[in-house]
Amino acid sequence: MSHTVEILSVGTELLLGNIVNSDAQALSRELSGLGLNVLYHSVVGDNPGRLKAAVELARSRADVIVTTGGLGPTCDDLTKQTLAECFGKTLIYHPECAQGIRCFFHRMGKEMTDNNLQQAYLPEGCEILDNDWGTAPGCAFEADGTYVVMLPGPPRECLPMFQERAAPWLARLSEGVIRSRTLRVFGLGESAVESLLRDRMNELTNPTLAPYAKEGEVELRITAKAETEEAADALIVPVEREIRALLGDLVYGADVSGLEQVVLEGARDRGLTLGTAESCTGGLIAKRITDVPGSASAFLGGVVSYHCEVKAGLLGVSQALLDEKGAVCAQVAEQMAQGARRALGCDLAVSVTGVAGPDPDERGNPVGLVYTGLATPDGCWVKKLNLASPGARRDRIRTLAANHALDMARRWLAGLEPTGQDVQRGWTD
Amino acid sequence: MSHTVEILSVGTELLLGNIVNSDAQALSRELSGLGLNVLYHSVVGDNPGRLKAAVELARSRADVIVTTGGLGPTCDDLTKQTLAECFGKTLIYHPECAQGIRCFFHRMGKEMTDNNLQQAYLPEGCEILDNDWGTAPGCAFEADGTYVVMLPGPPRECLPMFQERAAPWLARLSEGVIRSRTLRVFGLGESAVESLLRDRMNELTNPTLAPYAKEGEVELRITAKAETEEAADALIVPVEREIRALLGDLVYGADVSGLEQVVLEGARDRGLTLGTAESCTGGLIAKRITDVPGSASAFLGGVVSYHCEVKAGLLGVSQALLDEKGAVCAQVAEQMAQGARRALGCDLAVSVTGVAGPDPDERGNPVGLVYTGLATPDGCWVKKLNLASPGARRDRIRTLAANHALDMARRWLAGLEPTGQDVQRGWTD
Repeated sequence: MSHTVEILSVGTELLLGNIVNSDAQALSRELSGLGLNVLYHSVVGDNPGRLKAAVELARSRADVIVTTGGLGPTCDDLTKQTLAECFGKTLIYHPECAQGIRCFFHRMGKEMTDNNLQQAYLPEGCEILDNDWGTAPGCAFEADGTYVVMLPGPPRECLPMFQERAAPWLARLSEGVIRSRTLRVFGLGESAVESLLRDRMNELTNPTLAPYAKEGEVELRITAKAETEEAADALIVPVEREIRALLGDLVYGADVSGLEQVVLEGARDRGLTLGTAESCTGGLIAKRITDVPGSASAFLGGVVSYHCEVKAGLLGVSQALLDEKGAVCAQVAEQMAQGARRALGCDLAVSVTGVAGPDPDERGNPVGLVYTGLATPDGCWVKKLNLASPGARRDRIRTLAANHALDMARRWLAGLEPTGQDVQRGWTD
Repeated sequence: MSHTVEILSVGTELLLGNIVNSDAQALSRELSGLGLNVLYHSVVGDNPGRLKAAVELARSRADVIVTTGGLGPTCDDLTKQTLAECFGKTLIYHPECAQGIRCFFHRMGKEMTDNNLQQAYLPEGCEILDNDWGTAPGCAFEADGTYVVMLPGPPRECLPMFQERAAPWLARLSEGVIRSRTLRVFGLGESAVESLLRDRMNELTNPTLAPYAKEGEVELRITAKAETEEAADALIVPVEREIRALLGDLVYGADVSGLEQVVLEGARDRGLTLGTAESCTGGLIAKRITDVPGSASAFLGGVVSYHCEVKAGLLGVSQALLDEKGAVCAQVAEQMAQGARRALGCDLAVSVTGVAGPDPDERGNPVGLVYTGLATPDGCWVKKLNLASPGARRDRIRTLAANHALDMARRWLAGLEPTGQDVQRGWTD
């Protein structure tokens, strides 16, 4: 019977809605990965009384308590004091922590104000979790059968602290391991994927199979629990094979960061270079490609041709065409992609032109009308899309448009028809 | 004494970390805006026993309970049944809801499966909250002094449902209103801002003043409570004046989406056009500018010159310079910005070249070394930055680099020294 966890986040800014509780999400993923069973998230403000009550509650309904926030140097930061009190421990000054905090400020070339040393007081007998990503050290201890881990609030500190420091301490609690593999699906909606797989999902218990809607795509998460990683992975293999057989080339990758990573690796493997020509996505595709470390090995660059003069000037799109048909049409998408190949000197170029909204364009083209293009050494393809849907705002339309453009490159690199089902060949080939 | 609220979110996907609880953030903002006092967030899975216990707990410590999730058509969706049980109400079939659900499917051109009609059962005597954004209606009722609101989980349904349906129902509970104003600060870290303002923050009770660290910048939120919006706003004015007097031109805006919005509006107001030339930020700046609806009124486009050939070819950066010094130096940043002005035909261009990591570049330039440039009709400026810090990964370095580039444009448009403190004039002027 696996251990139960409550994640207790402390901070009035969460209750005011100033920030989203991304720590709780990140830690839930990590804890599940350790085979621990997260049963509750709770959030309280910087209030000693309510925090104390929340700790007592957590203690009564979970055997692992992971707190986030309230470890900092300000008077609002009361997590350590309150937890220590609840578990009958006193706070002790740790010179080595004080030294670590001084070093941090030194490395950052900043002055340290004395209140920062408050962070060097930690519960007696705790294991100190050093913070290489900020100033507030975390800590962990066991008391009366409850395991307590305290982590700083800033997400850039909280997650690495958990992965590097807390996870090894908690590992002893996990019976067996949970492994999961995430298949990424593009070109089919969540409800369609779910109705295809519903019966299987209900049958499966170990591994489990669950779909999650992402912006414009679907993730299928296969999660197995076993004694060892190898045994868990072995449980996953046949289910993955089954899904791939069912969904075919709609499955574009497994455990990848997104279409951009698959496109980059596909190009790199074939020794081809990439470029982009973006209008309504405004640099989003190039940004996503260069989010991937090492993208310079295949990505040469891009042109954000937001205005028509830039489409004509840098990409060589026909001015006559722009005058006659405007920027939102298949031929412009095609000429943008071909122009990017020429201007950037790359082998493959994707292009996007369309109406992201909030308003129709000056020619009355509706929000959500988007053309994506792909230019390759052996031809050019264009895809016409209507990305409008209830509640689909500018950012979603831009994300979907970027996904479709990247998927055309992904499919071509995999030897598939770039436009998928609804083929619309370009004009010049 | 204002009402106290607990937001209770229901869904195992939250506890697995598959999604972040953005509903809790959005609703906290809205509820605070109504003058209600959110004291707790809690999350439980799709488990009747734990959900029931969580409802009883919420009832004991708050007088308003807002639930999200678990209103859908699947067997996992038990929020309505459980809440009705806790408050001794039976679920009643509402034909008009059934009709609404049928209409929704019709509008979406989809087949409705019968299990969807489960969503037409709602607690007796409740107020129905129609859902124009999805299929599951919400509801609200008062029982034994507790006010209960149930909303669907999908964020694109939850927030509009609250704003359009639940807020009017809850308005009767609010005494006075809470208003807040967020000043955005760039160029000073959170701890520095806080140490400057700590005493004032402790003195202030209404309005309150609180700093929040954002990626590479700081938000200062002033929150006031009063009988009317006007009275609350009047309380905010002197505090804002005080902060602006203290921080001067480090305050770049109030209630704005970010530096990109301020730069766009500054350029628009002066009838100037904008462009970008990006290397290590790879399109991030252009993407952020075009995130802003209506950006086409000032933004012409950009060049993502990830490889040197593109810097030389499209931006006219000197090949000799690139050969001699490589891409990461002040002169290249300057020539990129000037080249963007020429190539894009814009009045102002910002540029970025540097090392985002994870590894040093081939010339051994360290991760975090970045040069940002600004080309204007009356000269060019370059800023040298070291953005390395513990835990500063690729994405953070890119975000900081984009912020610095945008801030140079922001400062020039405001008639300030573009590079701020550490001035480093360009060479050609």
